[in-house]
Amino acid sequence: MSTPAPKVEFWYEFASTYSYLSAMRIEDAARAAGVDVVWKPFLLGPIFFAQGWNTSPFNIYPAKGRYMVREMERLTAVRGLPFKMPSPFPQNSLLATRIAIIGHDEGWGVPFSKRVYAAQFGAGAGIADAASLGGILRDLGQDPARVIALAGQPETKDRLKQRSEEAQELGIFGAPSFLTKGELFWGDDRLEQALALATAK
Amino acid sequence: MSTPAPKVEFWYEFASTYSYLSAMRIEDAARAAGVDVVWKPFLLGPIFFAQGWNTSPFNIYPAKGRYMVREMERLTAVRGLPFKMPSPFPQNSLLATRIAIIGHDEGWGVPFSKRVYAAQFGAGAGIADAASLGGILRDLGQDPARVIALAGQPETKDRLKQRSEEAQELGIFGAPSFLTKGELFWGDDRLEQALALATAK
Repeated sequence: MSTPAPKVEFWYEFASTYSYLSAMRIEDAARAAGVDVVWKPFLLGPIFFAQGWNTSPFNIYPAKGRYMVREMERLTAVRGLPFKMPSPFPQNSLLATRIAIIGHDEGWGVPFSKRVYAAQFGAGAGIADAASLGGILRDLGQDPARVIALAGQPETKDRLKQRSEEAQELGIFGAPSFLTKGELFWGDDRLEQALALATAK
Repeated sequence: MSTPAPKVEFWYEFASTYSYLSAMRIEDAARAAGVDVVWKPFLLGPIFFAQGWNTSPFNIYPAKGRYMVREMERLTAVRGLPFKMPSPFPQNSLLATRIAIIGHDEGWGVPFSKRVYAAQFGAGAGIADAASLGGILRDLGQDPARVIALAGQPETKDRLKQRSEEAQELGIFGAPSFLTKGELFWGDDRLEQALALATAK
């Protein structure tokens, strides 16, 4: 009997700049480590709202926001990724997240998520509406009308609500977050620690 | 003529757990990189206050606080450092910071700062009052009465106020922060990036 590969859950929020960094590298990093990744799109909005925030902390705390943009410029340059902030920031990620849940069911959730990040933070495009997400779906050979209808079903909405509650119960307060063996790691810069723990004997 | 060594400013707040991590390793890391470190003790309190916070964000946002403690446990274990949270947290760091300013003038600021961190986050001891800081000063061969009197002079108080204003002007919003060549790096995990930029041609 072969042992199943160790697992890391990758909790990501589409509107999160640092989640973009992780989404673009986690497949290669996990493959090199021999780890399976479970992609978990979720919404930070309800978690932030419960903390009394009605927008991104990068908007509420301007010094932190300026630093984030500068750091994203530095990190994307080192990694050879394009970077452009969308306007407005943050983008409403509700529809994209519901679609990603469908996509992960149907096997195209990973390329969909990466394309949403590339459009939003690589090209600075809006990703909030059905039109822009429809273009991405078409590129993936999916019928936008079918997928967007599925994304709007009560069942999909409920699953996303449960996902966000699960995030809160796990103690998640930011994105990206990585979960393995009951340990939480917050931030793109913690990916290596999560992979190392997943494969530790 | 010899070229002066590249410099990194190390902005640290005594009440900051992650600053403890950096204080304990920055000398070795900088020496290995051929970089001079300028130690800059400052107060985060006024910066947090300007953002509407009256205590540490780790107290205001409990999920973040729980995560910080767990992460400190993990990181100090890997680095072979003792770790115990003081109570209450955060400790009032005003007197320690004023003393550190005197200490850096007189050449004992680095060992003083490291001992304050070791007492506070290695042993979980209070560092807010003249009695505990006096013990550290005595261990360093300093006369507590003399140093604490100096720390209370209007000139020292003014210098710390200016220091904290300088931090705000530099865009500093957390600790530790590293500054080199006009670029700001926030967090113990960014020390290597700051050292690399300092020595880049």
